[in-house]
Amino acid sequence: MLIQVEDAADPRLADYVRLRDMDLRKSLESEHGLFIAEGEKVIRRAVGAGHPVRSILTTAKWVERGLPDHIADVAGETTVYVVSDQVMAGVTGFPVHRGALASMGRTALPEVRELLNGTRRIVVLEDLTDHGNVGAIFRCAAALGVDAIVLSPRCADPLYRRSVKVSMGAVFAIPYARMIDWHGGLAEIRAAGFRTLALTPDQSATPLDEVVMAERVALLLGSEGDGLSSHWLKEADQPVRISMSPAAMELGVDSLNVVAAAAIACHGLLRR
Amino acid sequence: MLIQVEDAADPRLADYVRLRDMDLRKSLESEHGLFIAEGEKVIRRAVGAGHPVRSILTTAKWVERGLPDHIADVAGETTVYVVSDQVMAGVTGFPVHRGALASMGRTALPEVRELLNGTRRIVVLEDLTDHGNVGAIFRCAAALGVDAIVLSPRCADPLYRRSVKVSMGAVFAIPYARMIDWHGGLAEIRAAGFRTLALTPDQSATPLDEVVMAERVALLLGSEGDGLSSHWLKEADQPVRISMSPAAMELGVDSLNVVAAAAIACHGLLRR
Repeated sequence: MLIQVEDAADPRLADYVRLRDMDLRKSLESEHGLFIAEGEKVIRRAVGAGHPVRSILTTAKWVERGLPDHIADVAGETTVYVVSDQVMAGVTGFPVHRGALASMGRTALPEVRELLNGTRRIVVLEDLTDHGNVGAIFRCAAALGVDAIVLSPRCADPLYRRSVKVSMGAVFAIPYARMIDWHGGLAEIRAAGFRTLALTPDQSATPLDEVVMAERVALLLGSEGDGLSSHWLKEADQPVRISMSPAAMELGVDSLNVVAAAAIACHGLLRR
Repeated sequence: MLIQVEDAADPRLADYVRLRDMDLRKSLESEHGLFIAEGEKVIRRAVGAGHPVRSILTTAKWVERGLPDHIADVAGETTVYVVSDQVMAGVTGFPVHRGALASMGRTALPEVRELLNGTRRIVVLEDLTDHGNVGAIFRCAAALGVDAIVLSPRCADPLYRRSVKVSMGAVFAIPYARMIDWHGGLAEIRAAGFRTLALTPDQSATPLDEVVMAERVALLLGSEGDGLSSHWLKEADQPVRISMSPAAMELGVDSLNVVAAAAIACHGLLRR
């Protein structure tokens, strides 16, 4: 059902307000159990992953051009708010170029124990707080065949708009769960029979190429600045590293960003 | 020499104006042959790479705390403009948290032919226009032992502030040159004896693991959206690919971002 809305302050558009205000969005999205999908491709994937559509927001210009088939299908069963470019920018805080936004309902995440059923190759993220990095790692992990991702309690939200966008929708393609308890979380994964490999820049760790794989393997990745906590490093079965160029070490260019490191490690380890 | 400046419009601060205005900065920096280094670590690396310091801009707060030794050394031989936090934000357009900015002089890039002397493993970037991606690829390439980088004429500037920042200063650690002629540029590299490998998502290309290496190898990377041009793909010695997970292909998560792809390919190929 198409509904014209003329006023950026109309309460029916409340799901879409100030999309670049991270603090506001975090509380709004968690309180109302929603997230925003941007653009036709992402909306299609979010719907495909079983998320209910709360509403769609688009501009008159896009409606005139004809909504993409898939959006039109979804639109038949939900409310589509149609606004001018000015109202769109007024509500969201920026000019939206991808035609349509959808407010989607969150669905309950599985528990870690449940998530691990039937998986062999997983990635565990400890305290990655950058939404772009989380999204990029989901994209890599999905493309390279990782079965599932476990997040520590403080990791950034994969359904935050920027994570979803950077992931190119991969957050809907790879199952994930969030630990309740950081301190005991790794022990639960080890108890499920996973060999836990802690990726570290420490050059005394085992190079990727020399790692002996196991039936079930979990790759642990820490945050960009601090790397993995000493608690997790100590508890992991083995520290592993990416071999750096000796010349680079001398120049002090001795680390990779977490996404590059994740890509190399997923490619090198988890395909085996 | 420390000079207090009270007015954000003072012409002596002209090198530092509106650092987030990309169009303005591009023309200003190329016309005056300068670039901006941000923070002590990056300034140190830029100086170490032989770039002359035009001036430094810092805040009274940082001067009171005591400038880091290295900045103090540099500061002894140049002009240091000291401003309030308000003037800093007024000039640059945002609150600078890294203490000091330096305006550095650009030095002439080598010609491609000159750059290639003595190199065995190089990366060639075709039309990567995103500064963050260019910086991240420099960081990967430097850490993984790539000898040099060649840019196509339309590639983003590695000395733009965002490239420098994302590279963590690696743009000063790895030599690079820019082709004059896109159409004939690859032929010049091949004529220098490089085997040119074109990275492509095309799953009929040779997987990385199966590539037969040569004495001199050039890895060609195209832009995020379009990949390599058909001209370069056709001219390259061999198309190569990263193996994707079959499950991911089915889900449509069938590509990696260019930085992740570059990291995997540099790690997989160029260390050999």
